[in-house]
Amino acid sequence: MNTVLPNDVHPAWLPPEAFRALGSRRSLVCGEGTLVDTVRHELALACARYGGSTDQPHPRPDAPPSDDRPAAGTSYELVFALVPAGLLPIAAAAVDVVYRRRHGAGALGEEGFLLARHAEVTVVLAEAPAGLLHGLFHLVRLGESAFGLTRPMELHRPATRLRMLDHWDNVDVHPVMGQVERGYAGGSIFWQDGARREDLTRVGAYGRLLAAGGVNAVSVNNVNVHATEARLLTDRLGDVAAFADVLRPYGIRVHLSVSFAAPVTLGGLPTADPLDDGVRGWWADTTKQVYESIPDFGGYVVKADSEGQPGPFGYGRSHADGANVLADALAPFGGVVHWRAFVYNHRQDWRDRSTDRARAAHDHFAPLDGQFRDNVILQVKHGPMDFQPREPISPVIAAMPRTRLAVEFQVTQEYTGQQRHVCYLAPWWSEVLGFAPWGDDGPTVAAVAAGGPADGGGLVAVSNVGDDPFWTGHPLAQANLYAFGRLAWDPRLDPAAVLDEWIELTFAGASPGGPGPVRRALHAIMDDSWRTYERYTAPLGVGFMVRPGHHYGPDVDGYEYTPWGTYHFADRDGVGVDRTRASGTGFTGQFPPPWRDVYESIESCPDELLLFFHHVPYGHVLHNGSTVIQHIYDTHFDGVEQVAAMRQRWERLAGVVDPGVHARVRERLDEQLRCAEEWRDQINAYFFRKSGVPDARGRRIH
Amino acid sequence: MNTVLPNDVHPAWLPPEAFRALGSRRSLVCGEGTLVDTVRHELALACARYGGSTDQPHPRPDAPPSDDRPAAGTSYELVFALVPAGLLPIAAAAVDVVYRRRHGAGALGEEGFLLARHAEVTVVLAEAPAGLLHGLFHLVRLGESAFGLTRPMELHRPATRLRMLDHWDNVDVHPVMGQVERGYAGGSIFWQDGARREDLTRVGAYGRLLAAGGVNAVSVNNVNVHATEARLLTDRLGDVAAFADVLRPYGIRVHLSVSFAAPVTLGGLPTADPLDDGVRGWWADTTKQVYESIPDFGGYVVKADSEGQPGPFGYGRSHADGANVLADALAPFGGVVHWRAFVYNHRQDWRDRSTDRARAAHDHFAPLDGQFRDNVILQVKHGPMDFQPREPISPVIAAMPRTRLAVEFQVTQEYTGQQRHVCYLAPWWSEVLGFAPWGDDGPTVAAVAAGGPADGGGLVAVSNVGDDPFWTGHPLAQANLYAFGRLAWDPRLDPAAVLDEWIELTFAGASPGGPGPVRRALHAIMDDSWRTYERYTAPLGVGFMVRPGHHYGPDVDGYEYTPWGTYHFADRDGVGVDRTRASGTGFTGQFPPPWRDVYESIESCPDELLLFFHHVPYGHVLHNGSTVIQHIYDTHFDGVEQVAAMRQRWERLAGVVDPGVHARVRERLDEQLRCAEEWRDQINAYFFRKSGVPDARGRRIH
Repeated sequence: MNTVLPNDVHPAWLPPEAFRALGSRRSLVCGEGTLVDTVRHELALACARYGGSTDQPHPRPDAPPSDDRPAAGTSYELVFALVPAGLLPIAAAAVDVVYRRRHGAGALGEEGFLLARHAEVTVVLAEAPAGLLHGLFHLVRLGESAFGLTRPMELHRPATRLRMLDHWDNVDVHPVMGQVERGYAGGSIFWQDGARREDLTRVGAYGRLLAAGGVNAVSVNNVNVHATEARLLTDRLGDVAAFADVLRPYGIRVHLSVSFAAPVTLGGLPTADPLDDGVRGWWADTTKQVYESIPDFGGYVVKADSEGQPGPFGYGRSHADGANVLADALAPFGGVVHWRAFVYNHRQDWRDRSTDRARAAHDHFAPLDGQFRDNVILQVKHGPMDFQPREPISPVIAAMPRTRLAVEFQVTQEYTGQQRHVCYLAPWWSEVLGFAPWGDDGPTVAAVAAGGPADGGGLVAVSNVGDDPFWTGHPLAQANLYAFGRLAWDPRLDPAAVLDEWIELTFAGASPGGPGPVRRALHAIMDDSWRTYERYTAPLGVGFMVRPGHHYGPDVDGYEYTPWGTYHFADRDGVGVDRTRASGTGFTGQFPPPWRDVYESIESCPDELLLFFHHVPYGHVLHNGSTVIQHIYDTHFDGVEQVAAMRQRWERLAGVVDPGVHARVRERLDEQLRCAEEWRDQINAYFFRKSGVPDARGRRIH
Repeated sequence: MNTVLPNDVHPAWLPPEAFRALGSRRSLVCGEGTLVDTVRHELALACARYGGSTDQPHPRPDAPPSDDRPAAGTSYELVFALVPAGLLPIAAAAVDVVYRRRHGAGALGEEGFLLARHAEVTVVLAEAPAGLLHGLFHLVRLGESAFGLTRPMELHRPATRLRMLDHWDNVDVHPVMGQVERGYAGGSIFWQDGARREDLTRVGAYGRLLAAGGVNAVSVNNVNVHATEARLLTDRLGDVAAFADVLRPYGIRVHLSVSFAAPVTLGGLPTADPLDDGVRGWWADTTKQVYESIPDFGGYVVKADSEGQPGPFGYGRSHADGANVLADALAPFGGVVHWRAFVYNHRQDWRDRSTDRARAAHDHFAPLDGQFRDNVILQVKHGPMDFQPREPISPVIAAMPRTRLAVEFQVTQEYTGQQRHVCYLAPWWSEVLGFAPWGDDGPTVAAVAAGGPADGGGLVAVSNVGDDPFWTGHPLAQANLYAFGRLAWDPRLDPAAVLDEWIELTFAGASPGGPGPVRRALHAIMDDSWRTYERYTAPLGVGFMVRPGHHYGPDVDGYEYTPWGTYHFADRDGVGVDRTRASGTGFTGQFPPPWRDVYESIESCPDELLLFFHHVPYGHVLHNGSTVIQHIYDTHFDGVEQVAAMRQRWERLAGVVDPGVHARVRERLDEQLRCAEEWRDQINAYFFRKSGVPDARGRRIH
């Protein structure tokens, strides 16, 4: 384990200064195992810097004789203790009898921990090693306050077992998509020009950052599995094993995207039919070999029958058939299949207004509910389209009670500014996670992902990390990566509080005056930045007014006459997509009540989704009292003003934050302002040319 | 010299059958030199196939003793004779005294020839070897009719000395543009993956095809000169010399695109300032070395200060300064500089309606008239924009009487269907060449290119050839390459006759019934295909409604909000670009009378250019009696019907033409029909959504 990064790589939310409170204490770590060693290692590094000490209760069997043994009578300020599950209530009782009343044995599970402060000692208890590691990073977040005079006891455990990041990284540089598909942060940390990187220091450091956020699984290659990448499953499995080795000390499991056609392309079989015995056998044998190399391998990720990838449709089989053959191969080893529900017709005829891409996932998958194995996780994008800045939730989430569902987010900012724009996405994800698909009395999206008594599918997101010195291109985009982990661990967290947490950690070394002024400025810049982005881009939920292909910047008609199923139908009278049951595509009918009716009615449909569900005249009056056309003008002028204000705020931090960070963010804010003006002017000009309605406030429209 | 092509390469317009008439005659070739040897070689090949014979009047000094000497008293049916210029009238007198009356000594020049039929002998006389070669290919075109009972004597010489093809081929595969920029026929015949091709058979065969058309110069690399390509001027000059060696036997000179920054990037100088003595010296020395390797090297082609290429503006110098430094280096060796006038601001603000890309070349270059050296050729695109299917002529052509101008065409079909669509371009070029910029009493565009008493700049075109088995991707696109050469030789040729000529040659081996049925069908398919293409694409001269980047297929607003200066300004009331002096950009004022006034007035402006010059309401009535909006609908419906008819006609040729050709053309016609329907539907839907005006004939608009 080597967490020393090259000097030119930014430490993100784990700068040395974030460990000041821990590193200046006398601590004791009780327990054995790789992850416990990681806790010790982290504490030792911190203590070396800040003058504290860390001990273990007895020498490990393989440790050389040492004079560093804890002196009898040492008074510890911090204790990490691994306690067998059955003994936990007793141990906890020594700290606070409250625990026993609230929780039973095994309450902490594999990753939870108990934090208490008793007799001037801060204690972290866990039933399993990962709990101590999460406890450690929790203390890093708390800083000095972990050692305050009084603290109520806290029990932490993740809302869901699987909290995963998907990398859309290619082994070979793809001629169009490059090393990382939809990557905006340089090359891949895993691969370079067709080969695994020799130096995996950054992969290890990445695992450490993820663990400190709450993520515990990583899929290392693109869901679009090209020829070279397919071989990671077989003769290039060693690459995957190498990643697993450096991620394991942080409790991160490795998953792999595989090609459904692998039995043919790799195995030389005449078919990849999931019901063929030879195919079943090939997957079983191949998977067994994977686990021989990587005993804690997480499982497979599959994008099948989508955007050109092979799948079970090619053999007249269902997606349940397809997923189950992989699941059966993985089951003996505890692995899972993440099967993506992103299946739609990408060769649609734009002239055909009856076909609706928004319907596709539900049409394909809802009928399959109950047909998937227990270790199949259906991975559903949070919205029915494709990670636009505003969409309703995917109705699939409410349609498959007998299927483990994972909800998929996109941390990489494909449609939200591509890490050239500040766009803090946690408020958006928080809205989605807190949404109640069956109305206020029913469970939330987060609850569906967490599962009931049995495990749910958890949360998955597409990573935004590359080999950029700042990890994410835009330094402030690190906050999205951090916040995804935190919300995956606890979806009820307030995204504004997570933002402050991230700022405090990341700018722990800021000067003068510490993170305070930085926090206030950055909070103002970032907290509402997603809504600002929404304001200056495509209006009222209509989406996809981006440049085709790369998806950056405006092009109102760019997708209007294409096969991609992403239209707005603007004409001289109005704009929007009629997805009602009464007169449109019937998509509203895929939602359960009350939303099927809320969205169906033009009166009750929320303003921000109006054009997603309805085609309305430019003069239609919104709930906010404005007409659609005037709302378009107003939000676009406002959004640009807000970006200008962001930029001014950032300017005032010159000399306060690291110069390298400041310069990079300044450069990006310049581009964001330019691009926001471009959005404003194109959108306004487009709708003015079409509608002929002048701006009520007489501002300049080109 | 090896003109034997691999079996899988199509012979284009020189199939063996095209040599039937020549190959069955007894012929005599009198004269010495490389090109005369080429004539002999061609005749020998033809005679070997068709049973004729070819002789020379006396053994060459280096020839071995042979029994193949012409027998005394052999009666020749065909004689090629190279005659010293002073003796030509006397030699001609032996054939026909008419010659002496019409022409003086030296009338044939370097490439002309005299064709006569006398006493049952067909005679080709020339003053220089190239004339015999051109005469040979003229006889190939004539076939049996060259040996008819009576023929009036004909004198042929090219209208202009320089008839050139530019290749936009890259040595290294460009990550976006590939091996050939704007190439639609596979890879380059010159280069493959960063290296010169080892086997240059196809380059030689290409030279043979070009010579048979009338072209006499080729520039071998892209005008966008990247790092590797720049080095063709120096350490990779051997590549260029190799091409020159295989093209020389066909009278084709090699030219090279060079980077204006070469003195810095290759020479290591601190500047490329054209007025710097070191720079002048570097160009002089470098050019001297070029001529040491390639004594008949043609010269340099330069795209400067355009779309990112370096140029004299970087040093505060004019384009005359820039061109002249190269010209001075080339002058001692008889070389020329082709200096492209394609200079405009490609970072224009779409909001700014006063800037007009159409004005750019005239604004930049007209003030420099008279400042260029005699061996500078200003290479001007035929229209003011960029090879759209319809543009007015570039006013630069009429603005620089003291400058040698070359008119540039685009044989590669960047904006005219990319060799997936049948689009025979000769009628369009013929219109341009025959256009009289100063009115009917003045010279034509062709006359400007040909020059007056002194040499003009000639004609240049971007080639459409690649390593495709059919040379040009679409087999029928070969006709454009052929026709360019023919029109460059003689701009007065009827493009329909050139088409028939091409069909007769190319399908000389067609069966059953010979080329007759093929000619009728292909003539019907191709003759009007450019106007058909115009009908189903962007209307009334407005241009640029193509997909950005690759430029294939429709995207009405694709360039509307970009920095490229290519707009249509469609709104709910009307469409078009106001380029008048009265209320627009003033572009009309760049033309001399009468056109400045013809274009200025909405009444006199030709329909086909209306939207190029004027912004008009959809209800504006055209000269043809239709409204603009109805014209848009009508032409788009008509255009698609015409493509469907093309396709039907081609189907009927199954079994008549070569199956490989038939299959390839059928596949392309399928795509053309699909794409034409897409154009029709998108253009009609776009303008219907904007105008709200229904089709008067009630056809379906989506």
